[in-house]
Amino acid sequence: MRRIKIEIAYDGTKYCGWQFQPNRATVEAVLNKTLSELLGEEIIIIGASRTDAGVHARGNIAVFDTESRMAADKICPALNQRLPDDIRVEYSTEVALDFHPRRVHSKKTYEYQILNRKVDIPTIRFYTHFVYYDLDVVAMQEAAKYLVGRHDFKSFCSVKTQAVETVRTIYELTVTKQEDIITIRIIGNGFLFNMVRIIVGTLLKVGRGACSPENMVDILKGCNRGLAGPTAPAQGLSLMKIEF
Amino acid sequence: MRRIKIEIAYDGTKYCGWQFQPNRATVEAVLNKTLSELLGEEIIIIGASRTDAGVHARGNIAVFDTESRMAADKICPALNQRLPDDIRVEYSTEVALDFHPRRVHSKKTYEYQILNRKVDIPTIRFYTHFVYYDLDVVAMQEAAKYLVGRHDFKSFCSVKTQAVETVRTIYELTVTKQEDIITIRIIGNGFLFNMVRIIVGTLLKVGRGACSPENMVDILKGCNRGLAGPTAPAQGLSLMKIEF
Repeated sequence: MRRIKIEIAYDGTKYCGWQFQPNRATVEAVLNKTLSELLGEEIIIIGASRTDAGVHARGNIAVFDTESRMAADKICPALNQRLPDDIRVEYSTEVALDFHPRRVHSKKTYEYQILNRKVDIPTIRFYTHFVYYDLDVVAMQEAAKYLVGRHDFKSFCSVKTQAVETVRTIYELTVTKQEDIITIRIIGNGFLFNMVRIIVGTLLKVGRGACSPENMVDILKGCNRGLAGPTAPAQGLSLMKIEF
Repeated sequence: MRRIKIEIAYDGTKYCGWQFQPNRATVEAVLNKTLSELLGEEIIIIGASRTDAGVHARGNIAVFDTESRMAADKICPALNQRLPDDIRVEYSTEVALDFHPRRVHSKKTYEYQILNRKVDIPTIRFYTHFVYYDLDVVAMQEAAKYLVGRHDFKSFCSVKTQAVETVRTIYELTVTKQEDIITIRIIGNGFLFNMVRIIVGTLLKVGRGACSPENMVDILKGCNRGLAGPTAPAQGLSLMKIEF
């Protein structure tokens, strides 16, 4: 028995997220089926990050156990020949049998892209959130600073969460603008349900002047989801990488 | 009667190109139908560039005549509310009644994007041509130089063309690489049928070492489509802008 780690990129547009759901197209289900066919045994993968419906990934991580003798690095190209073209495996490598991608310390990088101009651009519509009103990027940068560090992010967590412990650490949160694209980059040691999208929704509220950067202090302190902004749409979000 | 000019961006993935064809989805057909519904009269647009099936645009130009009294600049937002989300109008403005976008001198800018790495990236698969073998960008840059200027581009023109005159001028042809993306940017005073895609296909042949940059001289001189490389796939190509 060996444990194999794979890095996966996907276009989340047509999927109901990562996690298996009966009779729904999910990334996990496609990978389980394709791996099982390839290796001739039932494979059940464990993903590092269960991305929401419509969210994309450049570098999600998963592991699975196999009795197959196929060389670990050969699994990646063999998988890519069988996968639909909206899912690609970047590499496959053997890891220790006790390596569990959700039980070890990790650093996750997400990027959220906002297209900020008067008219949408069709070729990037599935990968950006289109905002036609002017956004104050400097105010958004100011607000972002308050969220960096170790905080209770209960206000930035969907009320549908099962999480009991809502303290997380954000290592980096930057807002940059290049031409019409605003990129919000966030690196943390783990994120609560919808946390990245609620942070983005709150920064958008600051960006359009509906609240001030300093309001972040009260929103954090309040530990109340109602204080933060709305959950930003899924399609602007990509899981870029996970480091262990 | 007024003549209105519009600039159009589209995701060409689902269209059989710009030009109207019976019973086929084309960008021209969608615009004719949507404009006719909006303005309450039959509208037939004239496009500056009839892009191929699968080719994208950021700034194609078209004109149409209307008897409607709607303010010229209000047509753009009203159209965008009715268009499918893979077509967007950037602006609408009144022009002289004798302005014809294919009969005046113009400068067109195209960009072709190649993703050059071992594994494809799902989120950009409809907007780049994926090439897994190493490309020699310096050799491609060298080859590109031979094509700049006024030449007979018969070798770089589909044999299906109706063009009699095959002399064109390329003002600029650059090959640049940023991370895994190679961008071929070409500016000219008009392009023959498939010309940009055949130029890209020939530069790709140079990039993989199948012919040398100096071969461009003989390919141009030969005036024979068989001498140039294959037609590169449509999805990497975008019409960026047209200047008159």
